[in-house]
Amino acid sequence: MAEPLKLGLAGIGTVGTGLVQLIAAGGDELTAKTGRPAQIVAYSARQKRKKRSVDVSKMRFVANPVALATDPEIDVFVELIGGEEGPAKEAVEAALRAGKHVVTANKALLAHHGAALAALAEKIGVALNFEGAVAGGIPAVKAMREGLQGNDISRVFGILNGTCNYILTKMEREGRHFADVLQEAQEQGYAEADPAFDVGGFDTAHKLALLTSLAFGTRTRFDAIYVEGIETITLTDIEAATDLGYRIKLLGVALRTDSGIEQRVHPTMVPRDTAIANVDGVSNCVAIDGDFIGDVMLIGPGAGGGPTASAVMSDIIDIARGVVLRPFGIKAKHMKAYKKAAMRTHEGGYYIRLSVYDRTGAFAAIAQRMATQGISLESIVQRRSDSERPGQGRSTRKKGEPQASVVMVTHETTEAAVRKALAAIERDGHVDSKPQMIRIEKL
Amino acid sequence: MAEPLKLGLAGIGTVGTGLVQLIAAGGDELTAKTGRPAQIVAYSARQKRKKRSVDVSKMRFVANPVALATDPEIDVFVELIGGEEGPAKEAVEAALRAGKHVVTANKALLAHHGAALAALAEKIGVALNFEGAVAGGIPAVKAMREGLQGNDISRVFGILNGTCNYILTKMEREGRHFADVLQEAQEQGYAEADPAFDVGGFDTAHKLALLTSLAFGTRTRFDAIYVEGIETITLTDIEAATDLGYRIKLLGVALRTDSGIEQRVHPTMVPRDTAIANVDGVSNCVAIDGDFIGDVMLIGPGAGGGPTASAVMSDIIDIARGVVLRPFGIKAKHMKAYKKAAMRTHEGGYYIRLSVYDRTGAFAAIAQRMATQGISLESIVQRRSDSERPGQGRSTRKKGEPQASVVMVTHETTEAAVRKALAAIERDGHVDSKPQMIRIEKL
Repeated sequence: MAEPLKLGLAGIGTVGTGLVQLIAAGGDELTAKTGRPAQIVAYSARQKRKKRSVDVSKMRFVANPVALATDPEIDVFVELIGGEEGPAKEAVEAALRAGKHVVTANKALLAHHGAALAALAEKIGVALNFEGAVAGGIPAVKAMREGLQGNDISRVFGILNGTCNYILTKMEREGRHFADVLQEAQEQGYAEADPAFDVGGFDTAHKLALLTSLAFGTRTRFDAIYVEGIETITLTDIEAATDLGYRIKLLGVALRTDSGIEQRVHPTMVPRDTAIANVDGVSNCVAIDGDFIGDVMLIGPGAGGGPTASAVMSDIIDIARGVVLRPFGIKAKHMKAYKKAAMRTHEGGYYIRLSVYDRTGAFAAIAQRMATQGISLESIVQRRSDSERPGQGRSTRKKGEPQASVVMVTHETTEAAVRKALAAIERDGHVDSKPQMIRIEKL
Repeated sequence: MAEPLKLGLAGIGTVGTGLVQLIAAGGDELTAKTGRPAQIVAYSARQKRKKRSVDVSKMRFVANPVALATDPEIDVFVELIGGEEGPAKEAVEAALRAGKHVVTANKALLAHHGAALAALAEKIGVALNFEGAVAGGIPAVKAMREGLQGNDISRVFGILNGTCNYILTKMEREGRHFADVLQEAQEQGYAEADPAFDVGGFDTAHKLALLTSLAFGTRTRFDAIYVEGIETITLTDIEAATDLGYRIKLLGVALRTDSGIEQRVHPTMVPRDTAIANVDGVSNCVAIDGDFIGDVMLIGPGAGGGPTASAVMSDIIDIARGVVLRPFGIKAKHMKAYKKAAMRTHEGGYYIRLSVYDRTGAFAAIAQRMATQGISLESIVQRRSDSERPGQGRSTRKKGEPQASVVMVTHETTEAAVRKALAAIERDGHVDSKPQMIRIEKL
C-alpha cells in the first residue's frame, strides 16, 4: 500500500464537515480509485471544543491555520476558511511557500489574488486546486482547464448562485414577492441573515472572475465586472417573462467582444424552452461556447456541504494520483491583462417595463424616445399595473391619477441606446417610477 | 521549447478532419496550454489520394494502420477508424504493446473489449484515453473518472444519440411522423442510410456500457444491456406525452439496484419542466447521481467532427501534460464482474397506450387486468384514435368496427406486472394492435 496522502484541514464548517464525512464514507473504494489513501491528520477551527456532527478526535488540533499550513506532517493544505484577505490568504501563501499542495474552495480569495497565487504555486511546483470555488460540486474547473482546452472559447456564463435561483424559482412557481420569498429562504437556511452578498450578485461575480480567467487565459480582475442583483425583480416582471416565453435567471456572463472582454452579472431573460431556463431551485449551471465543441453546459448543485466536499475531494484525488497542473491551465505569467468592454457597448435585446401615467400622448412620447435612439421594438404590451392586482399590497401610484404598466421587448440594440432612451422617458415625466430594464441573453 | 508530442492518426473521416483543423487552428495557444506542441507526423486512411478539406501533405502516409500504430516516430496513436473488431482492435493492441499512448473515439471497441484493453494499457504503463467515445464533445469521461471520484454513484443516464434526439424533437415540434422525419434526417446527413444502429438504440448501448464501467467500477459488458429503439414511437405518443406534461427521449440508464445493475436503453418519458426534457435536437446529455454531489448533468453536442475532435484533443493534451491515468479510474483488475438486474424487476411508472375496440365491457376488462397485477393508475384517458386525425394516412382500424385510443399512466409498479397485464389484455382480444408501453424515468 502506498504512503497515505496527509491532509491539514483549515475550517470545519459545512464543507469541512462534508469532507470529513466523505473521506470516512469513501474508505477502501476511495483508496482503490486514487491508489493511495487520503487522511486528515490535523485541523484548525475557530473553536476546538465545539460539538460537531463528525468525529475529529483522531486528528491533531492546531489552533493557528498558518501554523497548520506549514505543519511538517502534512502534504496538502485544505483551506475552507473563506474570505479574500486575513487568515485564509496568509495560510494559503504560507502553505505554498512551504511546498505544500493547496486545495481551496475560497472564491473571494482567488477572484482577488488568483493570478498571484497561481504564480507562487507554479514557482514552487505545487498544486493550487479550486474546483470547489466555482459552482459547488459541478466539475466546471476541470472541464475548462482540461476537458475543453482544445477550444478557443468565446463565452462562458451561468447560474452561479443557488440562493438567487431559489428565490427566482419560488417567485415564479408560487406567485410570491421577492421580500416574502427571501424571508422564507433565510428562515430555511438557504439565504444568509445578511443576504446582500448573494442577492446583490457579488458571489456570482467572484465565481465569474475565475471562469473568465479559465476561459480566456486572462488575469483575474474582480473590479472589471459589472454587477446588478435581483432585488429589483418584481412579480410583475416574472409574470411578464412567462407571458413572453422567458424565465428570469441571475446570470454571470463573460464574453469576448471586439471592444474587449465583457463581464457582467445581472438578472437575465432566457427562453423558457431551453435547458438553462429549467435549471431550478438551488441548482447552478456553467455554459461554455467553444469554437470546436460548440455549446456545452454543466448543471448541478451549486453549494452545500456534500457537493462542495465532492469537488474538494476531486482536487485531492488529482494530487493523490500525482497530477499537478497549472492552476488556470496556462502559465501564470502568460495570464494576460485585458481590455474591459464598457457596459454601454453591450449588444442584445432588452425587456423594459414602465409604469406610465395614463395620459393622452404618453405612449407616443415613449415610442418616439425609443425611435430616436434607433431602437426597434419586437413587442409592446400594456399590462394591468401592479397596484390593480388583488392581494398585492404595495402601490407606487400617485393618488388620483390612473396608471398603466407598459412592457416592451426590443430587437437587438446597445446598452447605451437603451439607457439614453430611458433617461429621456424619465425626464419627460410620463412614468411614475424608475423604469425596469432586464437584458435578454442570446442562446 | 519542449519536444513536440508526435501523433499518428489512423482514419481521416469527419472526426479526423476535425482534429487536423483543431491542431492547425490551435497553434501557439494550444502549445501554451499544454507546454508542448502536438504534431500529427503520420496518418493512415483507406485511400491515400482522396481529395480532402484539410492539408495532409506534410504528414507521412502509412498504408497499414497496424504499421502506423507501432511506427518508431510516434508517441501517441490516435485511433479514429471505428468498429469493434478488425483493424481498429488490432492496431490499438499493437500500439499499446509497442508502448504508445492510445487515444480513441471508438465506443464499439471499448464497449466490447474495454476491460481487456485497459489491463493491457496499465501493464505497459501508457494512456488509453477515450473521451470522444462517449457523448461526443461533452467531457463526461473526465467528469466521471476524475471530477466525481469522491462519490459513490447510484445512477448514470443520458441522451446519448443525437440522431434519435433530433428525430424525436422534430416529431414533437413539427407534428410529423417518425418515418417522415427519419427520411429528412437521412437526406440532411443527420442519419445513416442504414439507420438501425442509431434508431434501434445500439449506439446508445455502446456508450452506456462505458458509462456503466466508469460509474460502478464494473467490467464492460455490452450483452447485459436491455435495448429498445425509437421506431415504435408514434405521433400519438408524442402528443399524449405533451398533454401529460412529459417529453419522450431515448435514454440509456444504468442503475444500481438491490438485485444487481440495471442497464437499459429505451424511449422514456421525462417531465417537461426539467433540463433533460429541454436537451433538444442533436444535443446529448449525461446525468450522474452521486451520494455527496447529488445530481449533476452535462449537456452538449453528442457527435460531429468539431465536438468529437475537441474531446480527442483533450485526451491528447492530458498526455502532453504528462497525465496518464487508469482508463476507467480504477485498476483494470479491480473492475468487477457484476450481477445483471433482470428487466422484469425494473420499477417505475409506465405510460400505456391501447388501441381498443369500442365495445361494451372492454374498458372494464382492461381495468380489471391492471388491477389483477396490482397496478394502480395515476390517470386513464380516452383519446381520439390515430385514424380519426386529419392528415394522417395510416390506419390500423379494422373495417367496420369503431375504435378508441386509451392512454393510461401507472403509479410505480414493476415491469413484470405490466408485461403480464398487457399480455392478458391482448389475449382478451379487445385491442387491435400491440399495446404501446413507454417507461417513465424518476428524476
